[in-house]
Amino acid sequence: MKNPLLALALSLLTGSTAMAQAPANFLDAKASDPIAMGWMIGSPPPPERTIRFEDSSFLQFPQIRWTFSHWRELFPTVGVSRGAGPVSRLPVAQRTDLDGVTFTTLGANQPMTWGQSVAANYTDGIVVMHKGAIVYERYFGALKPEGMHIAHSATKSFVGTIAATLVAEGKLDRDAKVSRYLPELKDSAFGDATVGQVLDMTTGLEYTENYADPNSDAWNFVRAASLLPRPAGYSGPTTSYDYLKTVKKAGEHGQAFAYKSVNTEVVGWLVSRVTGQHLEQVLSERLWQPLGMEQDGYMQVDSNGAAYAAGGLNLQLRDFARFCEMMRLGGRFNGRQIVPAAVVADIARGASKANFAKAGYATLPGWSYHNQWWVSHNDNGAFMARGVHGQACYVDPKAEMSIVRFASFPLAANGNLDPTSLPAYDALAKHLMAHPR
Amino acid sequence: MKNPLLALALSLLTGSTAMAQAPANFLDAKASDPIAMGWMIGSPPPPERTIRFEDSSFLQFPQIRWTFSHWRELFPTVGVSRGAGPVSRLPVAQRTDLDGVTFTTLGANQPMTWGQSVAANYTDGIVVMHKGAIVYERYFGALKPEGMHIAHSATKSFVGTIAATLVAEGKLDRDAKVSRYLPELKDSAFGDATVGQVLDMTTGLEYTENYADPNSDAWNFVRAASLLPRPAGYSGPTTSYDYLKTVKKAGEHGQAFAYKSVNTEVVGWLVSRVTGQHLEQVLSERLWQPLGMEQDGYMQVDSNGAAYAAGGLNLQLRDFARFCEMMRLGGRFNGRQIVPAAVVADIARGASKANFAKAGYATLPGWSYHNQWWVSHNDNGAFMARGVHGQACYVDPKAEMSIVRFASFPLAANGNLDPTSLPAYDALAKHLMAHPR
Repeated sequence: MKNPLLALALSLLTGSTAMAQAPANFLDAKASDPIAMGWMIGSPPPPERTIRFEDSSFLQFPQIRWTFSHWRELFPTVGVSRGAGPVSRLPVAQRTDLDGVTFTTLGANQPMTWGQSVAANYTDGIVVMHKGAIVYERYFGALKPEGMHIAHSATKSFVGTIAATLVAEGKLDRDAKVSRYLPELKDSAFGDATVGQVLDMTTGLEYTENYADPNSDAWNFVRAASLLPRPAGYSGPTTSYDYLKTVKKAGEHGQAFAYKSVNTEVVGWLVSRVTGQHLEQVLSERLWQPLGMEQDGYMQVDSNGAAYAAGGLNLQLRDFARFCEMMRLGGRFNGRQIVPAAVVADIARGASKANFAKAGYATLPGWSYHNQWWVSHNDNGAFMARGVHGQACYVDPKAEMSIVRFASFPLAANGNLDPTSLPAYDALAKHLMAHPR
Repeated sequence: MKNPLLALALSLLTGSTAMAQAPANFLDAKASDPIAMGWMIGSPPPPERTIRFEDSSFLQFPQIRWTFSHWRELFPTVGVSRGAGPVSRLPVAQRTDLDGVTFTTLGANQPMTWGQSVAANYTDGIVVMHKGAIVYERYFGALKPEGMHIAHSATKSFVGTIAATLVAEGKLDRDAKVSRYLPELKDSAFGDATVGQVLDMTTGLEYTENYADPNSDAWNFVRAASLLPRPAGYSGPTTSYDYLKTVKKAGEHGQAFAYKSVNTEVVGWLVSRVTGQHLEQVLSERLWQPLGMEQDGYMQVDSNGAAYAAGGLNLQLRDFARFCEMMRLGGRFNGRQIVPAAVVADIARGASKANFAKAGYATLPGWSYHNQWWVSHNDNGAFMARGVHGQACYVDPKAEMSIVRFASFPLAANGNLDPTSLPAYDALAKHLMAHPR
């Protein structure tokens, strides 16, 4: 991943059709520890240890091991306020038996322990909750317990949950055309797509994510959204919304799942339009404040001041755990119903497995995608938020377990982490069910 | 102030030789209320109500009434952590008699009340403390009590106080040449300047701040520091430190006060070099944590990740009050000695009035500048932190009063605010001394 443009482009994906193993040609988690490597230490840091937006070095590995815990130092951002209320309680009852839980990796079928998987996945921070208490909590690299980390595409599940809530409240009609709320998109591919189709990413878009092709549409999107430096003489769109207007239709909507981040940008825009609020304000009022978050989060913004709905959320790991645990508990947390139980139940039920299968995710057989969540349809009814490079909120209702992870895995597609993650989650769920405390 | 480049350039100044009155050709404070005007409201905001970095609109009036409370949405920033300690107490005993306190404006010699001055100065937030309690607290425009506001050049006084403390601790030698600590600056104007000369801004620099001249050095500085968009084909320095290396000497050091922000950038670099820490870490450890600040602050950073020492601090008004009150109390606050008493006493004593007079500030006769503070030498021993467009921490030891103000005055030089500010502070001090509660 020497090409930072390639790395960023891939970072828009949260899955891939490959079922790769941990990359042997990269420094491992310990060797790439960003503190030990000295990234951005010194005044100024040495040139070979400086990470910048303008030269795209912020997206290279191992620099990302620093970058993902320092996003605001590279981009304009806006706060997601927790308000002035009390912090909600997260009981801690750490267990020492989890590191030894064993599982078999996908594909390679190798034995591995939970403890080994944490390093193999370049974990920056991980919290496991069982029956409402933190039973495992670790931090590595540049992430401190009180630090912020970018959630990448796990952001989508926050935004999707809010949109689904607005649907439940009757403020947004899932069957309505997007153009009913956003007439600006009337002539784009999204104009005749329904709210439900962008939420489930079944839109038919003439929008390629071929990162070997410098003319791929994805490049134009990230440049418009201020996620990458723009070349001299750049004359394309300068905001996310303006980019969305240019996306053309290809094929029919509603036929197949196709993971394209521009859908989430439309969802974020819909949320802002129907609430009359900026996305970060909605996140604050509907999640940060009622969840009793420990710290303000923040979101990357474009030159319109619009928060990057598809991947711009940064938050504390324990606050990520509060959100994830709320989903496990059917929307109830901190003594109140925060998201309607029916909304969570609908997410957990998922969408069409047949539509999903067309996308060909080798590590996710039988899964579906609904309201910006990845749904396993396994025996435990597990569903996930997934962000590139290993960000995860894994909800296992039957095991009464939720797991949140921040990571900086060298490769940008979660298909690379799944072999050492999904069976590990399963093994942990079984262990916790068999050995509750 | 139609030219945003001109506005920014002026924003590097905190005083001027003019003694202007409130500008009659600008909307007044009420008419320019940024919420009522609708800046950045909507998704997207209407084009005529959108504020951007890339077109420099963020520096125009009345846009600055929004911008100054939303700085992080326009720039990369880094947090100044308050740590996990308890918030220090700020007793509140608001009084209703202060708005009616009268004074005579400088220059125009017009009668005005304190309450009128608050509006005349386009105040965004103001706190008056007397004998350790908040006796007056108001918020206007885009600033909420829990919100952040840019301190502009009041930042310099935070940095100068820390540098002076490092001198007192023997970690920095005031009489040493800057090049002893920063060999990178050996061939610049700063190479043979002493630490004390950059702290007191008596360096002789071939550095113009002529904002009518597009080739003025100040333009190059702000572009290098990422404070302004760079033109196509820009090939100058891309960090503050790299810019400092290019500043040439003119005349002799130590002869005259000349307010040039590049001096403070050197001070900030010195602090980072001798502590081995980033500036925001030093601010956290030496001020934010011991002061028991209510909220994390944040600083704008350049593409080296270096905090903008001359003007990049954003903080909550009440936290600004904690800092200012600590200075009033001889460095003691929150039950501990935070800055050595001798350091505060030395700042309050000021420096050469004769050197200061050469700069010709009409509103500041008999003042001096020492360790990045403005010292009045008045009967009450008052001294100030001053930031462009009206940012202020005014310490009046004899009256046991401190005042902090955030503002977004249309013009960029504090000489315009002094006529309705300095006599107001004096009148308030007299009133509080005569009528203590």
